[in-house]
Amino acid sequence: MTRFIRQTPEGDDRERLMCPDCGHVAYENPKVVVGSVIAEGEHILLCRRAIEPRAGFWTIPAGYMEMGETVEEGAAREAWEEARVRIALDGVLAVYSIARLGQVQVIFRARFAEPGFAPGPESLEVASFHWSEIPWDDIAFPSVRWALKAWRETAHGALPAATLNPPEDPRGVHRLPVAG
Amino acid sequence: MTRFIRQTPEGDDRERLMCPDCGHVAYENPKVVVGSVIAEGEHILLCRRAIEPRAGFWTIPAGYMEMGETVEEGAAREAWEEARVRIALDGVLAVYSIARLGQVQVIFRARFAEPGFAPGPESLEVASFHWSEIPWDDIAFPSVRWALKAWRETAHGALPAATLNPPEDPRGVHRLPVAG
Repeated sequence: MTRFIRQTPEGDDRERLMCPDCGHVAYENPKVVVGSVIAEGEHILLCRRAIEPRAGFWTIPAGYMEMGETVEEGAAREAWEEARVRIALDGVLAVYSIARLGQVQVIFRARFAEPGFAPGPESLEVASFHWSEIPWDDIAFPSVRWALKAWRETAHGALPAATLNPPEDPRGVHRLPVAG
Repeated sequence: MTRFIRQTPEGDDRERLMCPDCGHVAYENPKVVVGSVIAEGEHILLCRRAIEPRAGFWTIPAGYMEMGETVEEGAAREAWEEARVRIALDGVLAVYSIARLGQVQVIFRARFAEPGFAPGPESLEVASFHWSEIPWDDIAFPSVRWALKAWRETAHGALPAATLNPPEDPRGVHRLPVAG
């Protein structure tokens, strides 16, 4: 495996991971996590993690966004993979930065598009908790707590939503006009 | 330089860039662009790009987020780098996906924190345009047009903001509690 070292490439202003032999720069970028708080009335869907970190603790369906998908598609994919649930998105609930981990989380407020849920391969179990019964002491990550509280503040009103792609270009397919 | 090939690693469900010799997987992830629509009254700050793509065309201050920063810090850094302006953020204006490019854009609504602006090294010029004078035919990217229109819809009201990190943990420093 190539051994990268930390040095500042010519013309750059910070250290990057570089191959000392060929000068190849392996840029490290923050990763996007997409997820959703899925609710029906006062009940919220949570998954108990089957994998580390924090196996055995409860989380909302969320995970790393893949190339070629939109944030909305990624959130829907994760909901299916982790909780076997088909969701409809209301809008953006929160945008969190976990700077220490190089992570940006885009969290949606969502509803059930179809009834039913079940654990996917990364979940031990999936359950619908009434707000008053959320297992706060067994939540996997602080940002899950933040998202649940953000949901609570908006659950009964119009979502104060950031705008998403316009209807005419939902996947960002836009072609640049020819310059000049 | 290592030549990577596209194949599906064991246990994965999609093709990744892999080194055929050592099996190292170079995961490709969507990249985060952070930017802001910076306004004073009906005037909006735009930069004319000095670099490709779309050199000579107008854009809002925006660029790739770096490791170790929050989305808010990244947007403020880009405003300084491209337009030599110090900004204060109102909140999240928009979250756009450019799926074709593997890009997620987090765009803020912002104001001047200090007076003054000037072109940074990646800008030919920086100017403040009244809404009625925005050079729509010379805007660099469709998503800049989307962001300007999203600003127009919220400019005179409370921003319909997605929540950001809570005040007690603005940079996502949170430590996990010890499991068990």
